Amino acid sequence: MEGKTTMKGLAMLGIGRIGWIEKKIPECGPLDALVRPLALAPCTSDTHTVWAGAIGDRHDMILGHEAVGQIVKVGSLVKRLKVGDKVIVPAITPDWGEEESQRGYPMHSGGMLGGWKFSNFKDGVFSEVFHVNEADANLALLPRDIKPEDAVMLSDMVTTGFHGAELANIKLGDTVCVIGIGPVGLMSVAGANHLGAGRIFAVGSRKHCCDIALEYGATDIINYKNGDIVEQILKATDGKGVDKVVIAGGDVHTFAQAVKMIKPGSDIGNVNYLGEGDNIDIPRSEWGVGMGHKHIHGGLTPGGRVKMEKLASLISTGKLDTSKLITHRFEGLEKVEDALMLMKNKPADLIKPVVRIHYDDEDTLH
Amino acid sequence: MEGKTTMKGLAMLGIGRIGWIEKKIPECGPLDALVRPLALAPCTSDTHTVWAGAIGDRHDMILGHEAVGQIVKVGSLVKRLKVGDKVIVPAITPDWGEEESQRGYPMHSGGMLGGWKFSNFKDGVFSEVFHVNEADANLALLPRDIKPEDAVMLSDMVTTGFHGAELANIKLGDTVCVIGIGPVGLMSVAGANHLGAGRIFAVGSRKHCCDIALEYGATDIINYKNGDIVEQILKATDGKGVDKVVIAGGDVHTFAQAVKMIKPGSDIGNVNYLGEGDNIDIPRSEWGVGMGHKHIHGGLTPGGRVKMEKLASLISTGKLDTSKLITHRFEGLEKVEDALMLMKNKPADLIKPVVRIHYDDEDTLH
Amino acid sequence: MEGKTTMKGLAMLGIGRIGWIEKKIPECGPLDALVRPLALAPCTSDTHTVWAGAIGDRHDMILGHEAVGQIVKVGSLVKRLKVGDKVIVPAITPDWGEEESQRGYPMHSGGMLGGWKFSNFKDGVFSEVFHVNEADANLALLPRDIKPEDAVMLSDMVTTGFHGAELANIKLGDTVCVIGIGPVGLMSVAGANHLGAGRIFAVGSRKHCCDIALEYGATDIINYKNGDIVEQILKATDGKGVDKVVIAGGDVHTFAQAVKMIKPGSDIGNVNYLGEGDNIDIPRSEWGVGMGHKHIHGGLTPGGRVKMEKLASLISTGKLDTSKLITHRFEGLEKVEDALMLMKNKPADLIKPVVRIHYDDEDTLH
Amino acid sequence: MEGKTTMKGLAMLGIGRIGWIEKKIPECGPLDALVRPLALAPCTSDTHTVWAGAIGDRHDMILGHEAVGQIVKVGSLVKRLKVGDKVIVPAITPDWGEEESQRGYPMHSGGMLGGWKFSNFKDGVFSEVFHVNEADANLALLPRDIKPEDAVMLSDMVTTGFHGAELANIKLGDTVCVIGIGPVGLMSVAGANHLGAGRIFAVGSRKHCCDIALEYGATDIINYKNGDIVEQILKATDGKGVDKVVIAGGDVHTFAQAVKMIKPGSDIGNVNYLGEGDNIDIPRSEWGVGMGHKHIHGGLTPGGRVKMEKLASLISTGKLDTSKLITHRFEGLEKVEDALMLMKNKPADLIKPVVRIHYDDEDTLH
Repeated sequence: MEGKTTMKGLAMLGIGRIGWIEKKIPECGPLDALVRPLALAPCTSDTHTVWAGAIGDRHDMILGHEAVGQIVKVGSLVKRLKVGDKVIVPAITPDWGEEESQRGYPMHSGGMLGGWKFSNFKDGVFSEVFHVNEADANLALLPRDIKPEDAVMLSDMVTTGFHGAELANIKLGDTVCVIGIGPVGLMSVAGANHLGAGRIFAVGSRKHCCDIALEYGATDIINYKNGDIVEQILKATDGKGVDKVVIAGGDVHTFAQAVKMIKPGSDIGNVNYLGEGDNIDIPRSEWGVGMGHKHIHGGLTPGGRVKMEKLASLISTGKLDTSKLITHRFEGLEKVEDALMLMKNKPADLIKPVVRIHYDDEDTLH
Repeated sequence: MEGKTTMKGLAMLGIGRIGWIEKKIPECGPLDALVRPLALAPCTSDTHTVWAGAIGDRHDMILGHEAVGQIVKVGSLVKRLKVGDKVIVPAITPDWGEEESQRGYPMHSGGMLGGWKFSNFKDGVFSEVFHVNEADANLALLPRDIKPEDAVMLSDMVTTGFHGAELANIKLGDTVCVIGIGPVGLMSVAGANHLGAGRIFAVGSRKHCCDIALEYGATDIINYKNGDIVEQILKATDGKGVDKVVIAGGDVHTFAQAVKMIKPGSDIGNVNYLGEGDNIDIPRSEWGVGMGHKHIHGGLTPGGRVKMEKLASLISTGKLDTSKLITHRFEGLEKVEDALMLMKNKPADLIKPVVRIHYDDEDTLH
Repeated sequence: MEGKTTMKGLAMLGIGRIGWIEKKIPECGPLDALVRPLALAPCTSDTHTVWAGAIGDRHDMILGHEAVGQIVKVGSLVKRLKVGDKVIVPAITPDWGEEESQRGYPMHSGGMLGGWKFSNFKDGVFSEVFHVNEADANLALLPRDIKPEDAVMLSDMVTTGFHGAELANIKLGDTVCVIGIGPVGLMSVAGANHLGAGRIFAVGSRKHCCDIALEYGATDIINYKNGDIVEQILKATDGKGVDKVVIAGGDVHTFAQAVKMIKPGSDIGNVNYLGEGDNIDIPRSEWGVGMGHKHIHGGLTPGGRVKMEKLASLISTGKLDTSKLITHRFEGLEKVEDALMLMKNKPADLIKPVVRIHYDDEDTLH
Repeated sequence: MEGKTTMKGLAMLGIGRIGWIEKKIPECGPLDALVRPLALAPCTSDTHTVWAGAIGDRHDMILGHEAVGQIVKVGSLVKRLKVGDKVIVPAITPDWGEEESQRGYPMHSGGMLGGWKFSNFKDGVFSEVFHVNEADANLALLPRDIKPEDAVMLSDMVTTGFHGAELANIKLGDTVCVIGIGPVGLMSVAGANHLGAGRIFAVGSRKHCCDIALEYGATDIINYKNGDIVEQILKATDGKGVDKVVIAGGDVHTFAQAVKMIKPGSDIGNVNYLGEGDNIDIPRSEWGVGMGHKHIHGGLTPGGRVKMEKLASLISTGKLDTSKLITHRFEGLEKVEDALMLMKNKPADLIKPVVRIHYDDEDTLH
C-alpha cells in the first residue's frame, strides 16, 4: 500500500452492470482501520443489488460484504489492533454508541438496517483495500487454527443463518422447520441444531443442499416438489405442526406457510431478504384471529466483534465445520468477478464460492 | 339451587337471535365447581358471536364470559374452595396439565384458543348457574375490599388489555401507542402505564373514552378523524416513531399502521379479535424487507386463578380503579339482556355496562 | 397385578437401613395411574436419603425416583393413556394447577421442591407397582425407538443436567465451565453443548468420566488435583474467565469458585443438591461488591410429560446418546438393591447402573 | 472557560480528608465533551470513598458523579451535541464498543464496574469543569420542562433504584419487598411501582422516608425496630412470603433475610454497594438446598444516554416526581462541600441535598 493513493475494486456501475474501477483509498478516521482482503465471498444479495436493483440504483459502488482480511492501517484511537493483524470482518459493522445499539439492536444503529454499511452506504470489500468503522469494536482477530476461507463464512452466512434460529427462540427438544436451504438456510439448520432442536425439517430440493442439511442436523427433508409443504409437515407430525419455524428462503408468501404449519404458542424467525411484493400476508384464521401467540420475528443479523468471536469459537472447537458450504474455490482478487457470476448463475452444485488472496508479506506485515 | 335440576339463561338461539332458555344444570366433575353469578358484564365479542356469527353457528348456547360469582357446588377433589365462597371467574379457564399449558401457553390448552370455553365450547355465564373446570386452579377468591362489579372487569377487560401491554414488551420509559380505546384499549393504556411507559399515545375519537384514557396514563390523544394516524405519530415524535405499539382495536389493516409508526428493534402486541379479512398485511418495505426486528405478537389473554389474583391486587392496593370503565349499571339477572343490547347498539357514552345480581342468602350460603 | 392387594418394594427402614417390605398397593385416583417398572436406576440422592438422612428420618418409605414403566391401571378421568402403555416417568411430577405451576415453576407446586414426590412425600419407584399423580400431564409415552434403559436416564439425569445448562443461560459460542462430572454433570456438559456452547471446561478427575465428558462436548478437562481450579481456568482463558458456569457437583464452597472464575455480566446455574453446611458463601469482592451482574441461579429440574417428550426427541433423532452413562446393567427388580449399593460404594468405573425388569405379558398387556 | 487552563474542584486528598484543589483542565478527545455543572448532588458512595476508603486510597481525586451540566467544549467527532447544550450526565458512562457492552453489560465495559469512571478512575463532577467520554452516547439533552435539580436525581438515584426493580424481575401484580429506603431505596419503591407491583413492603424506620415511600407506591411499612423483618413479612403474607425482593440497603447479611422472606420461583435484585464483609451468606436450607429457584441478582446501574432519556420521560410526563427526594438545597459550586458533609452526617430529615450552580451566560452560551 505504501505510496498508493488509489485502489482497484469490482463495482456496481449501475443497475445490471458491473466492472472494475479505480478509486481513491478511503480516509482512516481515528477509530477506523483499512484492511486488505485475504478471503472474499460473494452473496446472493450482491446479485440482488446489481441485477434486481434491490437497494436502488448505485453508481461505481464497490460490491461485497463478506471478508477476512489483514489490517494495513489503524486510526490513532484504535487500541486492540495493529497493522498486520488478520481479522474476521462482519458484514454488519454497527456504530456502537447509537440509540439503537444501546437498546440492544446494533444492526439498526443510526436507522433501520443502518449497521449494514458495506456495499450499501459505502464501498464494499471486493477491493484492494476497504474501510472498517469502529475497528476495535467490529473486527475480530482471526484465530490461528481457522483458515481465512472457512472464517469468511462467519461474516454473513453463519451469523445470519444462526440468527434465524435465535429469532425463532428455539428451545431444547423443539421440533423445527427451516424453510430454504441455500447457504444461509443450511446455517439456520446448523443453528437450530446448536440451540438444541430435536427433529428438524429442512425444506429444499437441490440434492447437494439436502445432503449437507442432513449433515448439519436436519432429520427430515421436505421437498416442495412433492406437494404442499404445509400438508407434508402436518402429516409428518400427526397434525400437530412444528414448535418453531425459521424462514431462510422463499418470498413474502412463505410466512403464510409458516403460520399454517406451526403450533399456537410459537415463534417464526425470518432472515430472508424480501426483495419483492407490497405486503407479507399473515392468514387471519390460522393466526388465531389475532390471538394465537404465533410470534413473528424478522431481523438483520447482529454484527460486530463479539458475535464473530463467539461463532468462531464453534469452528475452533470443531463443533461447526463451515467448509462444507464451500463448493467452489478461486485464487486472486480478480477472480471475485467469476465467483460473483457463479452466484448469479447458480449452477446446481453451487452452495458458496470463496476467493483466496495471497500476499508476499502476509506473514511479515506489521 | 336445592332441588332444582334446570336453570334459566340468556342464549344465542342461532346467528342473529337471542332468547332466554331453560337448560339442565351441568354436571359437576371431581375438579369442578358450579357457580351462580353476583356480577356479569357483556363483551363486544358476545355481540360478534351472535350477530356476526364470528365463531360459527351455535344453537341454544348460553352467552357470556365475564363474571364474579358465588360457589354453589364443588367437586370431590376441590381443596381450596367451598360452597359460599365468592370468586372472580376468568374468561379463560385453561386445562392446566395440557401440553400447551406446560409450554407456558395455558390459553391454548388443548388447541389454539382452547382455554376460552365459556360461550364458545360450552355454556357461558349469563345463567342462573354455570360450570367451571379445574376450580382450584381457575377461580380466585374475591378480596373483601373489592366490589363484585369492579372485580368483573378483571375477567376479561383488565387481563386482556394488560396482556396487550405485556405482548408489546414495554420497558421503563418507552414511548407507546395504543390503537383503540374501548374498554380493552383503555386497559391497555393502563397496562402500559403500569409497566413503566413514559409517553403514551392513545388513538381514539369518542370524547368520554379519550378523557378516561388520560386518567389511565395516556399523555397524548390521537384522533384518526384529524388525519392519518401514522403521520400524526411521526410528526409528534420528530419522525422517530414509537418504541412499542399495542393494538386493541381496528381491523386487519391496523397492523400496517403499527409497522409504519414503530422504530426498528421494537414490538407490536395485538389483543384485538380480528373478525374479518383473509389476511393481515405487513408492509414489506417498512418491515425492513424482513429484517427490521419489528416483532409482531398477538395473543389471547392468560386466564386462571393466579392471573386474577395478581391483577386484583392492583385494585386492592388502590393502584387501579376499574370503576371508571363502568358507565351503565343494572340490577337482576334478567337485565343482562338490556346490557347486551347496549353493547350491540353502542351509544356514545358507553364504555362498559355491568349487571349486579343479589341473593337473600348471599352472606349466609355455605 | 390381578387380585393382588400388596406389593413388594425396596425401602428405607430408617436412617442408615434399607430392606424389602410389603405394602398395600396405592389407591388410584381419577387423574392418576399405577405403573410397574420396566427400567429403574438408583440416584446419589437415594443414598443421601438413606445414609445421610438428608431429608430427615423416614420409616418404611420405598426408595427410587428414576423409572420407565408400564401402566397397569388408570383413573377414570385419564384420557391420553391406557393400560399397557409404556411410559417415561419423570422424577418430578408436579401438580399442574397449583399457584407455583401457573407462575412457571411446576417443580415447586404446593411449596418449595413440592413437585418432588417419589421417595420424598410418598413411596418411590423401587417397587412392584407405583403411583403417579396427574398421569396425563406427567407421563410421556416411551417412543418405540428408545430402549427403556436408555430412557430411564431422562427421568432425572438428563433433565437435571440439562437444567443446569438452562439455568446458566448459555448462548451461542459461550465459554462454559461445568463443575462436577458425575452423571448429572456429564449431562450438563451435553446440555451446554446442545445449547450452543463453544469451549467447555469440565472439572473432574475420574478418568472414565473425563473421557465421556469429551465425547459429550467438553473441550478441556480441568483436574482439581492439579491445583486450584480457578487459577487453572483463568490461566486457560488469558485471565478473562468464562461466560457461564454450571455447578453439578462440589458443595457449598463451590459457588465461591464459580464467582471467581466468571466474567461480570454472566450466569451461574446450580443443580447440585447441597446436603450440608449452613450457608453458601458468595465472595463480596469478586461478586463486584454486589454490583457485578454475576447472576446466581439454582433450581430443581422441571418434570412432567412435555419436558420428557422434548428430551426424548434428542435421543430419537440420534443427537443424544444416554447409553454412554450406563456402566453397570442388572436384570430383575430384586437387583435394584445391588444397584443401589453400587451408588453407595462408588467404584472408580461407575457412572450409572440400570436395572431392567421383564414381564411375560410386557407386549400383550392391555 | 476562555483562556483558563486550570479548574477548581472538591477532592479527596487521601482517606478521611477532603479539600478544594486546582487542577489542569482535562483534554477533550475527538469523541468527548467538557461540561460545567448546573446541578450537583453528593452520594453516600462519595462519603464511603473518602471516609471508609471503600475503593482504596486516592490522592487529589475530584469527587462526585451526579450532575446536570452545560457543554463548554466538544471533540471533533461529536455530532449530536454542541457548546451550550444542557445535558443530563449519568454516573455511569460506558465505553460502548467494548466486549461487555456488546454482550449487554455496558456498565462493566473494560472490566467489572468499568463504566463507573467519575471519582473512581478519573476526576469526578464536583469541579468547575469535567470530562465526559463518548459524549454523543453518554449525554442526554436536558428536556426544557425539567429543572436541573430534579434531573440530577436521574444520574444515579433513579437509575440505580429502578435497576433494583429491574433486576428483581418484577411482573404485574407482584408482591414486593424493598429493603432500605434511603434515596436509592425510595427509587426502588417507585421503580417497583412503575413496573406493575401490587403490594409493596418498604423496610425502613425514619419517619420522613416512610412517608415518602408511601407516596412512591409502598403499601406497607415494615420497621425493623418492631422485630425481625422476615417474621413481619411472613405474618403479613399469611406465611407465603413475597414474590420479589429489592435490596437497596443493609449489608452482606441482608441477603439471608431476603432469601427467607421470598417464595420459591422468585428473584432478588441488589443495588446496594456492599462495603464490608468477606462473604454474602445465602442460607442453604431456605435456598432450597440449592434448588429453590430463588434467583440472586446484583448489578451496577446501566448508564448512558438512552437510559437517561427513558427515565427523563417519566418526569416530563408527570409520572415521576423526583423533587420529593430533595430535602436540602444549596446555591453555588462551593456549597457542594456543605452538601457532602450533610451526606456524611445524615441528619434525620435528610434524603438528598442538591446544589444549583448559575452562570451569567447560561442561556447564551454557544
